Amino acid sequence: MPRVAEDRPAAEPQSPGQKARYRRILAAAARLGAERGLEHVQMQDVAREAAVAIATLYRYFPSKTHLFTAIMADQVDHMDDPSPRIAAAEDPVDAVAETLLRSTRHMLRTPLLSSAIMQSNYAAHTATVSEAAAIEARVHRTVLTLLGLEHPTDRDNRLVRLLMKSWHGVLVSVIYGHTTAAEAETEIRLACAVLLGGRSGAPAR
Amino acid sequence: MPRVAEDRPAAEPQSPGQKARYRRILAAAARLGAERGLEHVQMQDVAREAAVAIATLYRYFPSKTHLFTAIMADQVDHMDDPSPRIAAAEDPVDAVAETLLRSTRHMLRTPLLSSAIMQSNYAAHTATVSEAAAIEARVHRTVLTLLGLEHPTDRDNRLVRLLMKSWHGVLVSVIYGHTTAAEAETEIRLACAVLLGGRSGAPAR
Repeated sequence: MPRVAEDRPAAEPQSPGQKARYRRILAAAARLGAERGLEHVQMQDVAREAAVAIATLYRYFPSKTHLFTAIMADQVDHMDDPSPRIAAAEDPVDAVAETLLRSTRHMLRTPLLSSAIMQSNYAAHTATVSEAAAIEARVHRTVLTLLGLEHPTDRDNRLVRLLMKSWHGVLVSVIYGHTTAAEAETEIRLACAVLLGGRSGAPAR
Repeated sequence: MPRVAEDRPAAEPQSPGQKARYRRILAAAARLGAERGLEHVQMQDVAREAAVAIATLYRYFPSKTHLFTAIMADQVDHMDDPSPRIAAAEDPVDAVAETLLRSTRHMLRTPLLSSAIMQSNYAAHTATVSEAAAIEARVHRTVLTLLGLEHPTDRDNRLVRLLMKSWHGVLVSVIYGHTTAAEAETEIRLACAVLLGGRSGAPAR
């Protein structure tokens, strides 16, 4: 677990050149994280692999926590990418389940990177790095949109938060090998069915 | 987050003298953890505060992770202590909710210690320290007993696991100040009602 010495605000890339360097950094960190895991990734190695100056790296990512939290944010940005399977789901709850399962399978393809991301997200959460809250809000909105809930009640929002917490717990279990991928999928589907079955306007079961 | 260099098996206290020293260590660590938080508790300080040799401390607790995971195990052992409020619950789901809420309130009384416990539990989980699995199993059994589920189905066990994951997520949120204690209580009650409402033999809603 990386230490977060200070929640220094990260710079945002502006020019095309800056944006290209920013993307190269994320890609390099993801590659190294997938190979080595969080503990064995050094900021110097990321800078070298991305071919940027170390000062550039630190300007955008004041810590490893910021860096791997940004990789998570990037993955979350792709959560609602269109897919035939999700589009074909007849029940909105199935659409949510398929979306969470697609992300879960994606994460399980690079377990060391996913572990790095989860550890950083946990550290960011406990250090109130603002990006962690933004990621949570983004996933929350994605689920509400899939459910077609334009005007969620307080209870709906709570159910979605409980689903996110359940999903997060299942991810930790499967990434650290405490449960199988098949069991994780069953639990995620069950969490969607039971928790979202309690939302406003849900058809009676 | 403490590093877990190795999952060395911890010694078990046997004689009355050993047991007394073991209890003194747990009490001292809980006191220092509540005052300072995990990062600022040193193993030497715990040994001094508990008036035991540093070698004794390490024999029972090979790392800070082991030490604070043991404090969590100790708290979990008291989860099913009798209470008038829990005994008076007419619905078994209310009995589970009251039990989780009592533990939650107990943890919120010493937020730095609770944060130390959650961080250690997370580290133990990711390092497969066996105590973490034992704690999970203990909480699981407590919930099944409160529900009167002697022969839980696979689905029942999954629902209980999802409840534990939801509760854990709510605890992290409230301990790190991302949500209020009142909102945490509402979310815990909702998680109990919705997830356990789906168990076998649950009355139709």
